[in-house]
Amino acid sequence: MDEKQVHFGIMGCANIARKMCRAIALSPSSTLHAIGSRSFDKASRFAVENGFSGKIYGTYEALLDDPDVDVVYMPLPTTLHVQWAVLAAKKRKHVLLEKPAALNLSALDEILDACESNGVLFMDATMWMHHPRTDEMRALLSDVHRFGQLKTIHCCFTYEADRDFLHNNIRVKPDLDALGALGDIGWYCIQAILWAADYELPETVTAWREPEFNEAGVILSCGSCLCWRDGKIATFYCSFLTNLTMDLSVLGTKGNLHIYDFAVPFQENSATYYSGSQFRLPMLSEHTVANDLPQEALMVREFANLVGEIERKGLKPEKKWASISRKTQQVMDAVKASTERGCQPVEVVTS
Amino acid sequence: MDEKQVHFGIMGCANIARKMCRAIALSPSSTLHAIGSRSFDKASRFAVENGFSGKIYGTYEALLDDPDVDVVYMPLPTTLHVQWAVLAAKKRKHVLLEKPAALNLSALDEILDACESNGVLFMDATMWMHHPRTDEMRALLSDVHRFGQLKTIHCCFTYEADRDFLHNNIRVKPDLDALGALGDIGWYCIQAILWAADYELPETVTAWREPEFNEAGVILSCGSCLCWRDGKIATFYCSFLTNLTMDLSVLGTKGNLHIYDFAVPFQENSATYYSGSQFRLPMLSEHTVANDLPQEALMVREFANLVGEIERKGLKPEKKWASISRKTQQVMDAVKASTERGCQPVEVVTS
Repeated sequence: MDEKQVHFGIMGCANIARKMCRAIALSPSSTLHAIGSRSFDKASRFAVENGFSGKIYGTYEALLDDPDVDVVYMPLPTTLHVQWAVLAAKKRKHVLLEKPAALNLSALDEILDACESNGVLFMDATMWMHHPRTDEMRALLSDVHRFGQLKTIHCCFTYEADRDFLHNNIRVKPDLDALGALGDIGWYCIQAILWAADYELPETVTAWREPEFNEAGVILSCGSCLCWRDGKIATFYCSFLTNLTMDLSVLGTKGNLHIYDFAVPFQENSATYYSGSQFRLPMLSEHTVANDLPQEALMVREFANLVGEIERKGLKPEKKWASISRKTQQVMDAVKASTERGCQPVEVVTS
Repeated sequence: MDEKQVHFGIMGCANIARKMCRAIALSPSSTLHAIGSRSFDKASRFAVENGFSGKIYGTYEALLDDPDVDVVYMPLPTTLHVQWAVLAAKKRKHVLLEKPAALNLSALDEILDACESNGVLFMDATMWMHHPRTDEMRALLSDVHRFGQLKTIHCCFTYEADRDFLHNNIRVKPDLDALGALGDIGWYCIQAILWAADYELPETVTAWREPEFNEAGVILSCGSCLCWRDGKIATFYCSFLTNLTMDLSVLGTKGNLHIYDFAVPFQENSATYYSGSQFRLPMLSEHTVANDLPQEALMVREFANLVGEIERKGLKPEKKWASISRKTQQVMDAVKASTERGCQPVEVVTS
């Protein structure tokens, strides 16, 4: 491996891969080395459209067999994650996997086990987790003086999908992304809630009544209430049928926090959050945090730096990101189960 | 009755009565005529503290027997509402009643029946309903082009009560305000949700798990999910144990609306709301609405104007405000029932 540059391969030419193509270029410690698709023509077109002049492969296997690829970024339909992420791990490629990480916990565990036993890093590609605003908000939530004790969280991620999306997008196809809106955007809400709760798993999940499904049984909108043993409560709502909303509210005994663009900040080079405090009643204070790179490039930089450390120092990959993904999946499984069981409360599997 | 001035009597010297004392003075069509308390001394002190030089009564009955009182504003503990509001109606006083209107629907119906049969106006004192921001937001929600179809609503009203409040305030006493946080601040959330839903009643209410109670069984925090037949969903959370938060989010297919001070605007002479639209992605637009009087004075003005019309023209009181209170109570009863029945879904009584 190049001393300073981590070589990325992109597996699949989904829309989000365009953004990641640019992010890999912007991040100082990464280089896009190869693109693989099931179709050489499709990969070639993607390369031209994105100004990429490196290697192009017409199969996923060929991408994984390139010894110069260190990391595989994988924006594949969720159904394909186990097969290709496990194979990537076996080929000793570090895995940056699009969300939702898997269709269920056992599938994710196959991936995580493969990563661990092959000594490669795993991270799901939830970009906002890497924005400096996220760290600054974390500092606020951890400050007993300013925020007090966490009491409740509300998160909402919705967008209005058009007719074409609702008929043809992979996100509404049971054989490709069977989790629908729950997987596509509910994932963000669940991870945001866990982030706010400092990754303490809730005890139970109760889906809201009247989730909406398409004819094939894929979730188009749903919501849930998460309860912790100590009385903390969180709610979230995700939908393909509602105007774009990306709200996160976190309320504590002494302060509160609001953002309205949690998953994708309105601006690329800064992001704003609002805080309330018993010391500054009744107004909310506005705080803007600048970022030197777009959040997706900050994610790539963090991933590349971690990979660089592993490779240079021969370290075992840290499990922080795998653990966050796994907890998100644990809660998602419970939401799905409660949704399917007539919105009965479901215990979150904690093992 | 004075041709232009409606004469108010205040029954009870609760804290909120101070604000209303000023509001009655600020409103152009109302005059504070009398104050009644169970204690003459207390009423006298209140009068001095609030610069009031009119009539003072040491019993509630005496206030109601004053023929020059047109309207009684009643900031009494909820338990006392039926007795005194019914008597006020029988004495032909128009009734402006503090929220929560009653402990349950049957109690409220006693009050509403007494008002109707005696030809007096009823309104609950939910002040923000009378702010011009509320009307402007209503126009947005009703605009199919800008907002589309209503999909979901989230409302949160919390404040952190101190130790003294949690031990001694009437709002935590089962014999005075047995509905606790649900009655005190959940009332606002439920009415805000109904307002956003254009007063269409939900079909079911499901309380969130883990409501918090004090030792006497009074609700200190709770939340609920409301479901409509057409798939609309709303959630709310109210708590005495969380830093001040007054959020309302209303999401439609084409637009959305956010406010963070819905019940009591941060500023007295203007209020702000934020709207998102598919035509202006991805930013929220800020809109500020000026008000010529504080919202409580606007409420008094509206009430006094309606009373003036009734008295001058011999009209029957309009039922709009009674109907809003009644629907709020119907939903509140369902929330309470679901909270008491282990958070099982409860149908909203619609008769």
